[in-house]
Amino acid sequence: MNILVQKYGGSSVGTPERIKAVASRIVESRRSGNSVVAVVSAMGDTTDELIALARQVSSKPPKREMDMLLSTGEQISIALLAMAIHELGEPVISLTGPQVGIITDNAHTRAKILRVEPDRVRSELAKGRIVIVAGFQGLSRDDAEITTLGRGGSDTTAVALAAALGADVCEIYTDVDGVFTADPRVVPTARKLADISYGEMLEMASLGAVVLQPRSVEYASQHGVVIHVRSSFSSNEGTYVRGEKTVERDMVVVGVAHDTNVAKIVVMDVPDRPGVAHRIFSALAAEQVNVDMIVQSTKQENTTDLLFTVTRDDLPRTLEIIDGVAKELGASGVLHTTGLGKVSIVGAGMVSNPGVAARMFEALAQRGINIQVISTSEIKISCLIDLDAVPEAVRAIHEAFNLSVDEGQSQAKVAG
Amino acid sequence: MNILVQKYGGSSVGTPERIKAVASRIVESRRSGNSVVAVVSAMGDTTDELIALARQVSSKPPKREMDMLLSTGEQISIALLAMAIHELGEPVISLTGPQVGIITDNAHTRAKILRVEPDRVRSELAKGRIVIVAGFQGLSRDDAEITTLGRGGSDTTAVALAAALGADVCEIYTDVDGVFTADPRVVPTARKLADISYGEMLEMASLGAVVLQPRSVEYASQHGVVIHVRSSFSSNEGTYVRGEKTVERDMVVVGVAHDTNVAKIVVMDVPDRPGVAHRIFSALAAEQVNVDMIVQSTKQENTTDLLFTVTRDDLPRTLEIIDGVAKELGASGVLHTTGLGKVSIVGAGMVSNPGVAARMFEALAQRGINIQVISTSEIKISCLIDLDAVPEAVRAIHEAFNLSVDEGQSQAKVAG
Repeated sequence: MNILVQKYGGSSVGTPERIKAVASRIVESRRSGNSVVAVVSAMGDTTDELIALARQVSSKPPKREMDMLLSTGEQISIALLAMAIHELGEPVISLTGPQVGIITDNAHTRAKILRVEPDRVRSELAKGRIVIVAGFQGLSRDDAEITTLGRGGSDTTAVALAAALGADVCEIYTDVDGVFTADPRVVPTARKLADISYGEMLEMASLGAVVLQPRSVEYASQHGVVIHVRSSFSSNEGTYVRGEKTVERDMVVVGVAHDTNVAKIVVMDVPDRPGVAHRIFSALAAEQVNVDMIVQSTKQENTTDLLFTVTRDDLPRTLEIIDGVAKELGASGVLHTTGLGKVSIVGAGMVSNPGVAARMFEALAQRGINIQVISTSEIKISCLIDLDAVPEAVRAIHEAFNLSVDEGQSQAKVAG
Repeated sequence: MNILVQKYGGSSVGTPERIKAVASRIVESRRSGNSVVAVVSAMGDTTDELIALARQVSSKPPKREMDMLLSTGEQISIALLAMAIHELGEPVISLTGPQVGIITDNAHTRAKILRVEPDRVRSELAKGRIVIVAGFQGLSRDDAEITTLGRGGSDTTAVALAAALGADVCEIYTDVDGVFTADPRVVPTARKLADISYGEMLEMASLGAVVLQPRSVEYASQHGVVIHVRSSFSSNEGTYVRGEKTVERDMVVVGVAHDTNVAKIVVMDVPDRPGVAHRIFSALAAEQVNVDMIVQSTKQENTTDLLFTVTRDDLPRTLEIIDGVAKELGASGVLHTTGLGKVSIVGAGMVSNPGVAARMFEALAQRGINIQVISTSEIKISCLIDLDAVPEAVRAIHEAFNLSVDEGQSQAKVAG
């Protein structure tokens, strides 16, 4: 029997009614002749509520205990979803991340899946049961502790299970119809993409188009899992994320992403000698702060300013780490700014089409939007700009690359 | 170092503020030179809220999934309590029932602790850590599934851990000052007992004085664990529960218990032949319905009425089971009543003091309270009466046995 892995996000299971609706959809998939494994996130705002509780008893909760706390959110939703499916008359069992054999490293609250031992899932499927799996959590390899994977980790759970089980496709259900050329709340004429390559999706996801967790796309790319991003509120086809060779289209740029969760840090006047960047960024890596853009510019003869960005959430931690390192390196100071946003264009065709960057900069210049930092890769170009200018910038770029809905084509729909 | 096992109930950890207060108390115990293991229940009404959620998605949730759901309640409180203790600067770790080696049978939602494998707790204590344990839950012996122990199960977790660790005393913190001669809400002059034997406590607990879960007292008795029932809101000495030989007093009756959660079932005109009672009660036992009082009376030559009581919560399930069995046995019908309560007197001295029963019946007769069913053991006498008459009956009996506060003695206090 064909194995289908599905993943339902927190908003899809936010209320008992929605849980029942998801149960119906899963039962439908089962009755169409599939073996179904459904990965579920915590209900609605549960995770945020648990974090708020933690803050009420502790100023800096130990991460190991945060995982003990946060993993309950998914455990509640899998139990309720299994009950709702049982009510519809299908055999079903719920399993936690540890029970399902999701083995991670020991980095509590941000653990990385190392491997999946899917024996338990296979044996439950062999019994004819639908298997409901708690996303976002696993078991640490070294000390068998409960770990969580960080925001959006359920996507990765689903993709990792799909890979381990050899599923043909991993369906990621969300509250939007698929992956769009831009955020439809910002660009009402944004178009749903029929498919997108892993690399493009990875850049879109990393750049603030928060449909899929980047790690899940990376994992899918490494294991050749086709992801189908679709809405849990409709039966429309969504967007397929797959290998570049299987994606056919004539678009140079597939989308405009934006990110408003950006903080900029400048370490001033660090000595211009080998090992300085290493010292700074290894200190951040050790504390698992993800650094995004990095720009270095020589100012005077012997010193340089080192600029980089992190998420706004990581800023307090980053400053704590950097202040010490900066002193140690003899830097003259550390500046930080939060009133910034990032707009980016993504497209695998970019590398073979000159003039793409120029067209983007032109669109911004025409609106008088100042670019503070530029960063590029083979398939994307990002610009750091004033936070207030982000919506206008996204619209301008979207228009410059003709990404809007064609005449006669129905407008892309977004639920909720 | 002396090992102290403490247990905090749901109301003691009902809010972040109370969790912080409990954290302080635990840290205090630790700093007084004890190795501390604290067993915790779910916060306040969490368990009831989870049950309500389950009912919204399922009319008859599978028990295995109920345990998956309900076990999250304690997992949340242990994580928060560990965070609060960490905040106070003491090394601490939280552990779930499965992690702590609480091995149970497979009876989901009503599992029984079979044994405790305390290696993990010992090794954490050896590292100088306070250990916070999720009460109410364990791991099933046969299939390594999460189980829960049923209402009040955290008491049993604490006693079982105290026994396994060889702790001198198991402190059960609750919202009352100890065990009273009657419920102080019904009898304002009720007196706190300094100590009570296991047998007496077991009868008190079974009979509706819900300070301790009966199973925990049974376990303590079997393993010789001294229980200290005390208030989490004061530092007063509470009531010690221990072996009969170590309890000294001259009271024949130690308390009056009452229970308003009673349903009476009568199976009418069952054939009066061997095996009938076995057929009925084994069917109930198989579904883990606890039967309390049983009375059989021969009515006609060949048939008998069989009367028994269960908790009101168990009534629907009981009727479901009994209706089938009654038909099979050729009974003429099944009646049930819920407007009943039970009043009981308890005392180990009863067996050597004639006239105790007479004095109880006299007290009820003087108030014109009709007794429907009588049941006795060596250390208790119970009467089933109209629900409305329960408070008056308890006061009358309490007075008849002179159990009230002595002149000059301060009145027993009850928190909340």
